[in-house]
Amino acid sequence: MPTTVKAYAATSATEPLVPTTIERRDVGPHDVRIDIRYCGVCHSDIHTARGEWGAMNYPIVLGHEIAGVVAEVGAEVTRFRVGDRVGVGCLVDSCRECRYCRRGDEQFCAEGYVETYSGTGRDGRPTQGGYAEAIVVTEDFVLRIPDPIALDVAAPLLCAGITVYSPLRHWGAGPGTRVAVVGLGGLGHMAVQLAAAMGAEVTVLSQSLKKQEDGLRLGAAHYAATSDPDAFTRLAASFDLVVNTVSASVDVDRYLSLLAVDGTMVNVGIPEHPVSLDVFSLLMRRVSYAASNIGGIRETQEMLDFCAEHGIAALVETIGAEQINEAYERVVASDVRYRFVVDTSTLA
Amino acid sequence: MPTTVKAYAATSATEPLVPTTIERRDVGPHDVRIDIRYCGVCHSDIHTARGEWGAMNYPIVLGHEIAGVVAEVGAEVTRFRVGDRVGVGCLVDSCRECRYCRRGDEQFCAEGYVETYSGTGRDGRPTQGGYAEAIVVTEDFVLRIPDPIALDVAAPLLCAGITVYSPLRHWGAGPGTRVAVVGLGGLGHMAVQLAAAMGAEVTVLSQSLKKQEDGLRLGAAHYAATSDPDAFTRLAASFDLVVNTVSASVDVDRYLSLLAVDGTMVNVGIPEHPVSLDVFSLLMRRVSYAASNIGGIRETQEMLDFCAEHGIAALVETIGAEQINEAYERVVASDVRYRFVVDTSTLA
Repeated sequence: MPTTVKAYAATSATEPLVPTTIERRDVGPHDVRIDIRYCGVCHSDIHTARGEWGAMNYPIVLGHEIAGVVAEVGAEVTRFRVGDRVGVGCLVDSCRECRYCRRGDEQFCAEGYVETYSGTGRDGRPTQGGYAEAIVVTEDFVLRIPDPIALDVAAPLLCAGITVYSPLRHWGAGPGTRVAVVGLGGLGHMAVQLAAAMGAEVTVLSQSLKKQEDGLRLGAAHYAATSDPDAFTRLAASFDLVVNTVSASVDVDRYLSLLAVDGTMVNVGIPEHPVSLDVFSLLMRRVSYAASNIGGIRETQEMLDFCAEHGIAALVETIGAEQINEAYERVVASDVRYRFVVDTSTLA
Repeated sequence: MPTTVKAYAATSATEPLVPTTIERRDVGPHDVRIDIRYCGVCHSDIHTARGEWGAMNYPIVLGHEIAGVVAEVGAEVTRFRVGDRVGVGCLVDSCRECRYCRRGDEQFCAEGYVETYSGTGRDGRPTQGGYAEAIVVTEDFVLRIPDPIALDVAAPLLCAGITVYSPLRHWGAGPGTRVAVVGLGGLGHMAVQLAAAMGAEVTVLSQSLKKQEDGLRLGAAHYAATSDPDAFTRLAASFDLVVNTVSASVDVDRYLSLLAVDGTMVNVGIPEHPVSLDVFSLLMRRVSYAASNIGGIRETQEMLDFCAEHGIAALVETIGAEQINEAYERVVASDVRYRFVVDTSTLA
C-alpha cells in the first residue's frame, strides 16, 4: 500500500512552496524506504521550481540531496538493513542495460536516467524529491553514508559533492596539479576541500576577497579576486584545471587564458544563455572547454567514502521547512555559507 | 655572406603577390641551406598576406610547407648532408630552454616559437618563407623526408599533415575509435588518410556529397552531407573525436551533438569571429571542445615516417609561381583537390 507523507511542494512557477502531502509507492522487493532526516537546497531545485529549465508539471517536491535512515526494506534487498544511514542523490533509476549503466556511469544512461524529482519512475508516475518525510528508492540507487559524517552535513554531498568530485577525478586533480575553483558557494566550497584532499594546489577565484578566510581554511593555497584586473595577468597559463561552479555567464576567454598547456576548464553549472569564446583561446596551448554533470552511483559512494576518510563535509545552515522560501531567495542572492539543509522533522 | 634568392612576395594586404628577391643569411655553424623544390599553399598564407590576422610588415614571402634538398651545411651540423631530402614546416626556431621546448613541444614554447615567415629570427630580422629558391634554417628545425615520399606531395605534410596528425594522436584516434572529419579540403584530406591509417573508423562530414568518391578512396568508411538535415540526427552521439578542419563559422552545438560520452571536438582552423555554444551541449555527455595548433619537430618527423610507412601523401595540384595569385582565389573558393604546391623551379 502506498504511504502518505508530509512534504513541501512547488505548485506553480511563481508561487512560494507550500506544505502538502504526497504518496510514496509501496516498498517493492528491491526497494528501500528511507525516513528522510535532512535534505539540501540545491540551486537546481530553484531553477526547476520556477520553470527556468522548461515548463513543469506541478506540484513538484524538490530536493535531491537526501540523507536519512532506512525504515523498511523489500524482501529481496541485500545491501541495506533497517537503521542504516543512507543517502539519495540526483538519480533514482536508469535503464541498467546500456553500456554506461553496465559500467556504473548511470549519469550517461542511453535511455536517460530517472531524476529524483520531475522525472518519471518505472511505475509511470512522476518522481518526487526529498523535501519530504520519506522516500522509496530501489536499493541500487541508495548510497551508504559512512559513520563519521553526520547526516545534516552529508546531505549536500549527494549533489554538490559528487558534482565537483567527478570532474576533479576525471581530469586528474592530484599531487602536482594546479586547480582553480571559480566561485566559493555550495559547489565551490566542496570543490576546494576535495581538490585539496586529492593533493592538488588549489586557488579560489572569487569576485571579492570576502570569503578568503573560509577558502584558505577549507584547503585553498591561494585566493584571488576576479574583480582585480591584474589577477588574470598574474595567473595567466598557470592552471591544469579550472572548475567553474558559477552558473552566471562569465567571460570564458578570460578563464581559458588561465590554463596551462593541455589544461581544461570545466563548467559544472549551466549559464542560462549560450557562451561565446574565441577559438584562439583554445588553440595556442591546446586547452579544452568542457562540462560535467553529477556522477554515477559507484563514484558517488567512492566520494562519500573519500569524504569520510579525509574528514570532509559540507558547511551548512540548517533550516526548518517553513524557511524554504526565504532560503530560496538567499540562494539566488548567493547569501549562504555554504548550503541550506532542511531539517525534515519540521514538516509539521 | 648572405645569398640573394628569387622569391614571390606579398607587398601589401590588397595587391597580388609579385616576383622579388630576398637575402638569406649566411650558413652558420648549425645551419642548413636548402634548395627549395616545392612549397605548398596553405590558407594561413592567404590570411597572413591579406592582413586578416593582424597588420603585417611587407614585403612578406609566404609559404611554410617546404620540401627540398640540402645544398650546404654548417661546420657543426651533424644530422644532415648535402643532397639529403628535407622539409621545413611552420616553425624555424624556439627558445629551446622552456619545459615545452625541452620535451619537444616547440609549438608551445613559452617564449613563442619563431614562425617560418612573418616572425623574427634570432638575428633580429624578419623571417621569410618558402615561395623562394632557398632557405637557411638551423638543423634542429629541419625535417627528414623519407625516400618513399616524392617532394611535391611531401610539402603539404609539413603543415596540413602535422596539423591534423597531432590532434589525432593526442586524442587517441586508433582501432575502436570513431572519428569524424569535418570538411574535405587540404587539412581534411590528410586527416582522413591519417585517421584511417591509425585504425579509426572515419566518417567525412562535408557540405555535399560532391567529393564522396575521393573521401572513400582516401580511407573513410562513411560520408555524410551536412546539408542533409537528417544527418545530425542519424549520427547523434556517435563519434569519439570530431576534427573540424573548416575555418568558417559552424554551428558548434550541432557538431557537439555528434559526440559520444567523453568525446572531443577539436578545431584545427580558427573562425574569424567568436563561436557561440550552449554549455548544455557539453554537459550531458561530458564532451569537450578544444583546438590544436600544428605540432613539434619530433612529432612532425614521426608524422613523416608514419606517412612513408603507410603510403600516405598529399593530393596536389602543382603550379608555377606565376599562378600563385590565381591559386589564392581558388583556395578561398575551396576549389582545389586538395593542395596547391608551387614548383619553385618556375621562379624565373
